[in-house]
Amino acid sequence: MAFSPLIEQLISALRCLPGVGPKSAQRMAFHLLERDRTGGAQLADALSAAIENIGRCSSCRTLSESELCELCSDASRDRSLLCVLETPMDVLAVEQTGGFNGHYFVLGGHLSPIDGIGPADLAIDRLLTRIESGEVRELILATNPTVEGEATAHFIAAQIEDDNVKVTRIAHGVPVGGELEYVDGGTLAHALAGRRTLN
Amino acid sequence: MAFSPLIEQLISALRCLPGVGPKSAQRMAFHLLERDRTGGAQLADALSAAIENIGRCSSCRTLSESELCELCSDASRDRSLLCVLETPMDVLAVEQTGGFNGHYFVLGGHLSPIDGIGPADLAIDRLLTRIESGEVRELILATNPTVEGEATAHFIAAQIEDDNVKVTRIAHGVPVGGELEYVDGGTLAHALAGRRTLN
Repeated sequence: MAFSPLIEQLISALRCLPGVGPKSAQRMAFHLLERDRTGGAQLADALSAAIENIGRCSSCRTLSESELCELCSDASRDRSLLCVLETPMDVLAVEQTGGFNGHYFVLGGHLSPIDGIGPADLAIDRLLTRIESGEVRELILATNPTVEGEATAHFIAAQIEDDNVKVTRIAHGVPVGGELEYVDGGTLAHALAGRRTLN
Repeated sequence: MAFSPLIEQLISALRCLPGVGPKSAQRMAFHLLERDRTGGAQLADALSAAIENIGRCSSCRTLSESELCELCSDASRDRSLLCVLETPMDVLAVEQTGGFNGHYFVLGGHLSPIDGIGPADLAIDRLLTRIESGEVRELILATNPTVEGEATAHFIAAQIEDDNVKVTRIAHGVPVGGELEYVDGGTLAHALAGRRTLN
């Protein structure tokens, strides 16, 4: 049976959500149309507004709707500590441990020659420029504890020529092969506390 | 940590989807913003278009963007067979068995005195008017095999005074206490084939 074209379109559009297969998409579409049109309309508006207005923070490159994100504009945070992460989700994960009061820098991924992602595809240039400005005293490399994340961390560490900048890597308290986003706060806090020097 | 307001709004709007909790909503929001803005924009558009344009078929009351839905406008379908269902999802479930070539009528729910849903809240008046038109030879009551669905079926059967209309109920091949929407096609086809007379 074919649904009406707009319902079909909605069902197939819902499948862009992670973890949503054909049956869930169908259930979601009917739920929204039959039982929660207000919620559906709010979702459409929130989605349009977010996609239109959310860009990247000019300083740390996390997702933000303002030129400078909330964390970067917070004067009470320590500008001499810079924590390098792969994605904005990782910023949230570290923030939630409550154990870090420095600044963040989001690379936007990790080095992955197989997928054709080299240093130019990440924001490593901007990171180096920021370090050259002389403000940063410690660079904490908190890329994912995966092969690619480790490689990215070592690549960045090798680029830092300024001896006044201490380069550290979060400790292997985090499970190897996992993703930072899903690690519990206690483990992550532990990993931050046990960071070790690379250079 | 507070996200920027637009991200917060998007995360809370995503929670209107069935089966989506706070962690999934967060994952979906970041996925859309970081990796699939095109898909997100399409979803917002599809959702707005669906909510704005999809109403109910004037004949069977299923979800439809045209005055008369595709199934009701199909001249090859048998107008003397009318299958009464609770929701548009049930229309799909029965259609997918491929074993029914009549028309449908969607009640929009079931009788439920506890929730204050009486005959006036369902489209039972319209159903009776349609039966009075004299076209229908058999009325198949395919409400859910739940207590409320059974009660609704018996209530409707009691309203049919025309002896020329055969009133049937789908067989209890469907699991009692379940929901029609999730029954597999084979069981449902069996239930349709084994329907028994009520009046």
